[in-house]
Amino acid sequence: MDLKVKLVDISTGRKVVLLNNSDALHIGVRPHDRIKVKTSKKELTVIVNITDSYVNQGEIGITPSLKKFFNCNSGETMEITTTGRSSSMDYIHKKMKGENLNYKEIHAIIGDIVEGNLSELEIAAFVLSQQFVGMSLDEIEHLTRSMVETGEKIDFDEPAFDKHSVGGVPGNKVSLLIVPIVAAAGLLIPKTSSKAITSPSGTADTMEVLAPVSFKADELQELVKKTRGALVWGGALNLAPADDLIIQVEHPLRIDPVSQMIASIIAKKYSVGVDNMVLDIPVGPGTKMENMEEGENFANTFVEIGKRLKIASYCGLTYGGQPVGHAVGPALEAKEALEALMGGGPTSLIEKSTALAGFLLELGGVAPENKGQDYAKEILRSGKALKKMQEIIEAQGGDSKVKPEDISIGEHVAGVEAKADGYVTQVNNKNITRIAQAAGAPLDKGAGVILNYKIGYKVSKGDKLLSIYAEKESKLREATVIATRSYPIIVEGMLLQKLPKFGGKIS
Amino acid sequence: MDLKVKLVDISTGRKVVLLNNSDALHIGVRPHDRIKVKTSKKELTVIVNITDSYVNQGEIGITPSLKKFFNCNSGETMEITTTGRSSSMDYIHKKMKGENLNYKEIHAIIGDIVEGNLSELEIAAFVLSQQFVGMSLDEIEHLTRSMVETGEKIDFDEPAFDKHSVGGVPGNKVSLLIVPIVAAAGLLIPKTSSKAITSPSGTADTMEVLAPVSFKADELQELVKKTRGALVWGGALNLAPADDLIIQVEHPLRIDPVSQMIASIIAKKYSVGVDNMVLDIPVGPGTKMENMEEGENFANTFVEIGKRLKIASYCGLTYGGQPVGHAVGPALEAKEALEALMGGGPTSLIEKSTALAGFLLELGGVAPENKGQDYAKEILRSGKALKKMQEIIEAQGGDSKVKPEDISIGEHVAGVEAKADGYVTQVNNKNITRIAQAAGAPLDKGAGVILNYKIGYKVSKGDKLLSIYAEKESKLREATVIATRSYPIIVEGMLLQKLPKFGGKIS
Repeated sequence: MDLKVKLVDISTGRKVVLLNNSDALHIGVRPHDRIKVKTSKKELTVIVNITDSYVNQGEIGITPSLKKFFNCNSGETMEITTTGRSSSMDYIHKKMKGENLNYKEIHAIIGDIVEGNLSELEIAAFVLSQQFVGMSLDEIEHLTRSMVETGEKIDFDEPAFDKHSVGGVPGNKVSLLIVPIVAAAGLLIPKTSSKAITSPSGTADTMEVLAPVSFKADELQELVKKTRGALVWGGALNLAPADDLIIQVEHPLRIDPVSQMIASIIAKKYSVGVDNMVLDIPVGPGTKMENMEEGENFANTFVEIGKRLKIASYCGLTYGGQPVGHAVGPALEAKEALEALMGGGPTSLIEKSTALAGFLLELGGVAPENKGQDYAKEILRSGKALKKMQEIIEAQGGDSKVKPEDISIGEHVAGVEAKADGYVTQVNNKNITRIAQAAGAPLDKGAGVILNYKIGYKVSKGDKLLSIYAEKESKLREATVIATRSYPIIVEGMLLQKLPKFGGKIS
Repeated sequence: MDLKVKLVDISTGRKVVLLNNSDALHIGVRPHDRIKVKTSKKELTVIVNITDSYVNQGEIGITPSLKKFFNCNSGETMEITTTGRSSSMDYIHKKMKGENLNYKEIHAIIGDIVEGNLSELEIAAFVLSQQFVGMSLDEIEHLTRSMVETGEKIDFDEPAFDKHSVGGVPGNKVSLLIVPIVAAAGLLIPKTSSKAITSPSGTADTMEVLAPVSFKADELQELVKKTRGALVWGGALNLAPADDLIIQVEHPLRIDPVSQMIASIIAKKYSVGVDNMVLDIPVGPGTKMENMEEGENFANTFVEIGKRLKIASYCGLTYGGQPVGHAVGPALEAKEALEALMGGGPTSLIEKSTALAGFLLELGGVAPENKGQDYAKEILRSGKALKKMQEIIEAQGGDSKVKPEDISIGEHVAGVEAKADGYVTQVNNKNITRIAQAAGAPLDKGAGVILNYKIGYKVSKGDKLLSIYAEKESKLREATVIATRSYPIIVEGMLLQKLPKFGGKIS
């Protein structure tokens, strides 16, 4: 069938064309089916989307990326023919039936995801089948390698070290201490990190308060030549690009299958030339690992897949039942991290950071086994970590002389008070996250939450349990409403609600 | 955030708005997230799609259906605010975790599917979790009731009978015999059927060769008052509309979970007032039930759910390993059915049709138990079924005097010859289907395949195994290529392929 090109200004990130409903009916294709599109010079297999009105009968809607591929103009003729199913969809189907996939099959799926040959729906089927059916160690290895091979790879001329967290705990600014400690000890730590997807601040969001974080691969190589350490955003490096495309379907479905999580972490680290790494696995209510057993299984699989890709790793199961330190939100966290580098800061932040940094010092042979944390603490105490952080900030283009009090925090502030005397028995990560996000984090850098009290603290009625900071008054209002309704911090003996809300006596 | 309306001419069937990437980033929403959209008069929660270019920063893309809802114009201001997650997505998530859903939860999901409040991705998660986790009998009952309650319902003043097939076998034109047999026996059989989704001809496609099939609910009621039977397309009746929306994700993913299949059949039948039905469950390679055990489990669940909705049912497990009769494709099948009503026709078609019709005669008390098929055969032999079919064709607006030779068949014909002497050992349903579809079925009514030989037939080299009919020469060529490559009919002893294809001697 011959159709006339209509240029449509929609970017989908996929090889998609729009057909009019009647044309689709005529050639017997349905949404998500594939057709072959042909001009005199080129041909390509694409996914069909169908519209009742946006392109007329006899027209084919061509997106900007396909216009570029075909170098075609409005009104030009294209021939379309129906075509068979994508073989990666056959493989996804095989996985859905519970069978194991081999390297070739997984590589085809990941390649098609990166090339835009699979629809969101088909990627979802792949991720959901991982969730429901699970994957063998071999399959996770294939998945990891395929994700690496379909992206860029950076090499350093010496062993590189890194730290990663599985996530789920707000306020986890430990990388801002670990990187300078490890770099100060002489090891190479080119840390790439993400911006927040579901948290109030990713490490890249927090670091961005102190210095720029967007660098290209060669710039990152230059950076660490000078400073031995860096804290950059991984998003600009095109590492394992399948990962971001997969996250686009995981996020709305709120799923995060273990196999995909492990492949995604290791692929990103392998792509950036990491040979040794430590993984922080927070365990506890509200994190991704509900209990120790889940955490241990995850750690064992992770270490095994790491080994297969020649990455030596230690996993640290850490307590994730409440935020690390007191601050949640980019600027508040950057401030707290800087305070800790300067000799202050909360114990939970220092303990966790030096424990994980210590693992890396041991892996790098800088500290004897089980002495890593002592060495890390000494580097922190001596001021060497602070000096290294200042070098890193300067190298990345920030102000190395920045002091905690220089960091600008949202000017609109509200507090939530304790309604009774007692001890804090529970801090709810998810509610803290929701409040910080409602206040504007991570996009409003100055927005966030300070927890004045954490589990075990004694409070008196009227004490301010937490303070909310926002850059915009309307956001502060939204956050305050959530805070008063959601009980992010629970004091034992506190009355949570009186019911019925109105009246109560039977009239 | 305030945005200016830009009207976009895209119909998605869902409550979707387009936001520019930077605005979405600013308020922290991602594709598939939900936002609340507000004008001075109305507000609505909608799903976010994100574009880099199609709407500019500061604009909100409004589809025709939302323009209608808000009664808004281009350039008008709308306020958007972020909003929590949809509670039906919470329920879907619960199912994904393996928990059972209650009536309220399933009803909320189905309601949101029908209302356009769930994205395709979210519907896919629901269907895939049915596939992977399975559903209890109670859940299937809730699902069925919810699908009925979210659509139209038709009532007849007396018990109604119906027949349905699970599908998977090409050439299954049995309804064109069953309906007139049952109606001739005095029972009410207002049969609604579907057009082909994956087959070369749905019952509605085949019947449409003989008479119009699109009727509204009141027209269907009028029809069966006169004739006691009808063969209409269910699509115009808005019965259980959730079903079509769910099929839209099942089709590209090629899944068809048992729970959804059963709920969908019973919901459609319940909506059209059916009290007694027979279900044809083809079993065998290439059908939806690979073996008898699967078929039996399906049948038992079906009967139980039917009972709960007060529908009495018999299930017939039938041999589905090759097409029913010889003809595949709308016109060819209509012709074969008419021949059978006139006293000719292939045994397999007559046996299957009278067996299933017999079940209905028994359910309706017209025939004693185990005598239904004899009664059905007698109604067929006597010519009463043909007379009834002519009445039905006339009532639906067709030509009641139509003869098999009047039916117009595609004029382009090709054959596939046997390459050796022997017996037919295998007929491949899926390949027959692909050939008929490539020839143009079901949209080209005259396109299709005649199987001249079926399993067990003796053939001599050079005999024509099958004939392909097409309305367009190009389609005939495509179909012939598939036929010569795919071995739809296998003769024992036949050489399938010689390898390597070129050369063979080691040079």
